[in-house]
Amino acid sequence: MDRIAILGTGLIGASVGLALREQKFPGTIFGWDKDPAQLGIALSRGAIDEATEDPVTAAVSSDVVLLAGPVFSILEWIDQLGPLLTSRQLITDVGSVKGAISERAARNFGGIGQAACLPGHPMAGKEVHGAEHAEASLFRDAVWLFTPLATASPATALETEWREWVTKFGCRTLDLDPARHDELCAWVSHLPQFVATAMSALLEDKFAGDADMRAIGGRALREMTRLGASPYSMWRDVAHTNTEAIAGSLLALEQRLMHLREHLKTPELRDEFDLANRFRAGRFRP
Amino acid sequence: MDRIAILGTGLIGASVGLALREQKFPGTIFGWDKDPAQLGIALSRGAIDEATEDPVTAAVSSDVVLLAGPVFSILEWIDQLGPLLTSRQLITDVGSVKGAISERAARNFGGIGQAACLPGHPMAGKEVHGAEHAEASLFRDAVWLFTPLATASPATALETEWREWVTKFGCRTLDLDPARHDELCAWVSHLPQFVATAMSALLEDKFAGDADMRAIGGRALREMTRLGASPYSMWRDVAHTNTEAIAGSLLALEQRLMHLREHLKTPELRDEFDLANRFRAGRFRP
Repeated sequence: MDRIAILGTGLIGASVGLALREQKFPGTIFGWDKDPAQLGIALSRGAIDEATEDPVTAAVSSDVVLLAGPVFSILEWIDQLGPLLTSRQLITDVGSVKGAISERAARNFGGIGQAACLPGHPMAGKEVHGAEHAEASLFRDAVWLFTPLATASPATALETEWREWVTKFGCRTLDLDPARHDELCAWVSHLPQFVATAMSALLEDKFAGDADMRAIGGRALREMTRLGASPYSMWRDVAHTNTEAIAGSLLALEQRLMHLREHLKTPELRDEFDLANRFRAGRFRP
Repeated sequence: MDRIAILGTGLIGASVGLALREQKFPGTIFGWDKDPAQLGIALSRGAIDEATEDPVTAAVSSDVVLLAGPVFSILEWIDQLGPLLTSRQLITDVGSVKGAISERAARNFGGIGQAACLPGHPMAGKEVHGAEHAEASLFRDAVWLFTPLATASPATALETEWREWVTKFGCRTLDLDPARHDELCAWVSHLPQFVATAMSALLEDKFAGDADMRAIGGRALREMTRLGASPYSMWRDVAHTNTEAIAGSLLALEQRLMHLREHLKTPELRDEFDLANRFRAGRFRP
């Protein structure tokens, strides 16, 4: 890998650029973003070497193309770049929903004469977005998930090399089937996000401007609503492309909260605390 | 204040002892806990000077009595110590629910010949309990709420001094009416706890032993379930004594989650994110 094109130089894309640099990537990093301001920040922070206004040319002339925008933008790029990339290239991404992306990718990549494709998803992020918050260390101790195409031939050298870079960023990698990825992420990532959004929105509706509420809220409130700051622009695409799994997890939590509410004064409450205690006693990284 | 008796030397009680020592309290700190192990840890960590097996004598012979066990234990101590304490003494507490405590305290304290009483509640804590986790710094930058008795005469010197100590611990103090305290705390403290408990219990039910789920879960999951480790022994009393307000906040969140679930693919989702973003943009400490 001598040349990489990062399409989307927001928080994740720019963090990948910074992580490549920190790990002494010797090649060239091209960057493009639909928002010129983000692109400028990524360039000035050294996350990319060259800011381009022509993402297609940058992609076509790179060894690896990293799609790092919201899910719908990734789907569009897959369609657009599919006919243009060649079998000497690798396309990968960082989208949070892998079913739709893998399905679209399978039509465009991994076949004879087509570029290789390795859909990916780093389990890392922040509630703030934008290249100004990017960090080389963002991926340290995170898991970088891959959902290899079912149709794909044996891994190409670029695929192997990309996995090595990701490992150098400090990630453990894990391969999953796309459907299982989306189901698991609905529970461990999307549900926490939507609960934080709902709780924050509810509190804003009920207490906007109440200084006492703000003064009293401690670590519990800050943590449980931190993700309330997350941008709609990213999560809209997740909600649209993993709807069923997210709705399932939300419904299950609604029912669980109802159960707890109906048992605030019964011994069933102890069972809920016991289960919750057990969940937290289990180690998060086996 | 020359002598203080801390009844309940768990996380909060022992942290108060450590904070007093850090702030050069020159007097004697007596400690008692129904669990001899907790008492031993508090003593060995220097949170108390003297471990007693006779809490009544310690209370009667102290200037200030701090009740630092679960809410029901505080109610019992109020009843038991009411007739024994005198107008030269102050009784205070750290219970999370103030309506029940203030009502019970008003019967026993604040009248002619009775001890002064200043119910309190530091908005600080951890998901882990016990004196081994106590820290002098636990209260730094927190708010210590007080709900003075309606019947109370002007603040006694001990009351003023206790407020000064709390300020030295690093707290800002805020006085609230007990009913308003319980309503606000239902939303900013109890709701986050019960949501974390429900989410943790749900995930344990659904994914117990699933190594992939554990591996994938990142900061969002860890944060949103951290309070799942909280002890039933403490929260049972909160659930029993602030039931109505907690049930109201849980029901409101259930409805909000349902709304969000039904609008995963509509523009209403943007409204929820906008409100949530606004909540997080507001400062937590005015």
